[in-house]
Amino acid sequence: MADVEHRVFRIETLHEFSTRVFLHLGVPRDDAMQAADVLASADLRGIDSHGVARLHSYFDMLSLGRINPKPAIKVLCSTLSTATVDGDNGLGLVVGPQANRIAMDMAEKAGSGWVSVRNTNHFGIAGYYVLEALQRDLIGWAMTNSSKMVAPLWGAERMLGTNPIAVSFPGKEEPPIVIDMATCAAAYGKIEMARRREEAIPHGWGIDRDGTVTTNPDDIVAGGALLPLGSDRERGGHKGYALAIMVDILSCVLSGANWGPFAPSFAVNNETPQRSVGKGIGHFFGAIRIDGFIDADSFKRQVDDYIRVLRTTKPAPGTTGPLIPGDPEREAEKLRREKGVPVILPIVEDLRDISAKTGIPLD
Amino acid sequence: MADVEHRVFRIETLHEFSTRVFLHLGVPRDDAMQAADVLASADLRGIDSHGVARLHSYFDMLSLGRINPKPAIKVLCSTLSTATVDGDNGLGLVVGPQANRIAMDMAEKAGSGWVSVRNTNHFGIAGYYVLEALQRDLIGWAMTNSSKMVAPLWGAERMLGTNPIAVSFPGKEEPPIVIDMATCAAAYGKIEMARRREEAIPHGWGIDRDGTVTTNPDDIVAGGALLPLGSDRERGGHKGYALAIMVDILSCVLSGANWGPFAPSFAVNNETPQRSVGKGIGHFFGAIRIDGFIDADSFKRQVDDYIRVLRTTKPAPGTTGPLIPGDPEREAEKLRREKGVPVILPIVEDLRDISAKTGIPLD
Repeated sequence: MADVEHRVFRIETLHEFSTRVFLHLGVPRDDAMQAADVLASADLRGIDSHGVARLHSYFDMLSLGRINPKPAIKVLCSTLSTATVDGDNGLGLVVGPQANRIAMDMAEKAGSGWVSVRNTNHFGIAGYYVLEALQRDLIGWAMTNSSKMVAPLWGAERMLGTNPIAVSFPGKEEPPIVIDMATCAAAYGKIEMARRREEAIPHGWGIDRDGTVTTNPDDIVAGGALLPLGSDRERGGHKGYALAIMVDILSCVLSGANWGPFAPSFAVNNETPQRSVGKGIGHFFGAIRIDGFIDADSFKRQVDDYIRVLRTTKPAPGTTGPLIPGDPEREAEKLRREKGVPVILPIVEDLRDISAKTGIPLD
Repeated sequence: MADVEHRVFRIETLHEFSTRVFLHLGVPRDDAMQAADVLASADLRGIDSHGVARLHSYFDMLSLGRINPKPAIKVLCSTLSTATVDGDNGLGLVVGPQANRIAMDMAEKAGSGWVSVRNTNHFGIAGYYVLEALQRDLIGWAMTNSSKMVAPLWGAERMLGTNPIAVSFPGKEEPPIVIDMATCAAAYGKIEMARRREEAIPHGWGIDRDGTVTTNPDDIVAGGALLPLGSDRERGGHKGYALAIMVDILSCVLSGANWGPFAPSFAVNNETPQRSVGKGIGHFFGAIRIDGFIDADSFKRQVDDYIRVLRTTKPAPGTTGPLIPGDPEREAEKLRREKGVPVILPIVEDLRDISAKTGIPLD
């Protein structure tokens, strides 16, 4: 971030601004605060592409009436441990947390809870939801599809979203293990960063519009695609592709949302998918009770032991040794709570534009 | 396979031989047939490393009394949708199918079922278990840990198993989507194949004993390690590493099995782990009822549509376009049921050795 022009905001400032923007657009107070919480979680954890950087898109979609500010979220079907939820085209930042709570409530009663959600929109970072599960002493899962950006292995066009998977496991004295990963090789944000710096991207991140692997980030933007985790056949690209399919089916086919290339775009000026095969996009949440398997306290002590053992791994040359999933985000959060959140200038301009249009002061 | 010396066996011959070997070692008839089914599934599906290629290891472990031929498999703890199972140090090929049935039974009653298993051994291919779920119209999951072979990202030594994940989704007219993937970049079997052919391995598969990336397969065997899916930091190696951790915790920490570098080796002459942190290795099974979410028939029609849409993807140059997970294994099975299973000569020698020691004819 140091080499890109930015302005630093206190997280409270960004949270207050987001809340007031959502309120201005007709979102009820509790929901507006909830949505701002999810965005702030991304900004704190250093996942800059998913925080206030997205506020202008939410603003556009709500302003144009493409997202319902007051959704009536409904359970369509349920068993003791599973449910399908219709998000009534609400903000994913509101539908997601509510569906996640349904999964957690079921887990407390039936040992586990699994919720597939249709008719929803972009839900922020998947990691937010599994952190919520930790608050209730549960192991949490969260997945979502997103608009097409990734080519299947051996494909030459975008067919799948970056379809992230998040999972969390609590430690006792050690901080939790928090996995939050897109199922593609590199995030689209890294492509944008390379373009801004006029740098080449590594082999394995993406292909051009003809399906040939490229190191020019412009090729990805100009009709190319990202590659799945594993990048090519030799290095396991079929595995990242398979994981993206798994996320897509659990989130969309199981709920009745738009899957694969038919996921509606989150940006207002992007192309509209060729077909509609369901309602909105889809999410999938899971929660399991640890003491449905084993004493929760001894589980957490084992997780502590697990983390400490991994930290003793002999380091690879030129590194300080393995990290634990969640380390970088937790360190970012600590730093940013103290020193503030750096926001790059194009996003500051977006926020100023919202401020001008709504009369809500930015600082 | 064409360029390696081999002998072709009918699958019935291999199945009969395996069954009789297990019987000879004191495994009850139903269990012996069950274990042979799992091995045959690997041989049919072209996952040669996990079929009769492993029979000598099972033979050794049972002969030496290191595996219990008549385990009393017990449920230690359960809720409506979760359970922990102790495999009583039985064959994973017997404990696995039984624990998987417990998960499927729970799913039929509670919508989903999740079973973590300790005190078990190598369970064959993860794909076998999710194919069983399809027989009962369920979505299936299977995972297991295994002895250390993979380095964490930025680590210079083996700390994790190849920790596979399998998931299946049924189609209606189309064959099912069957995902079965190790969480490392390349299977150990590919390293062995490269050694046999005296060929270099691609960059990204493994590191030498100092933690430096190598293209010499001998380095991996001589104290090196495999790399996680994604291979390096730039291409998402932290993601494959995170998935391996997820499998390990669900299979082992949740059940009370040996995790990470402490998983006991499956081969009798390998080193013994430094510590014992639980019992045996661990598996994790899951099953969910489709109609707990959505009408099962319309789900399967959507999966058909999903498969057909992916098959229409514009092909990458030099390819015939994307496959669907499960395609290669299904094609192998069709071919091998007809033409027989090619078994490489070193494995034929292993089988002959068992035949000589037990008096069970190989053909």
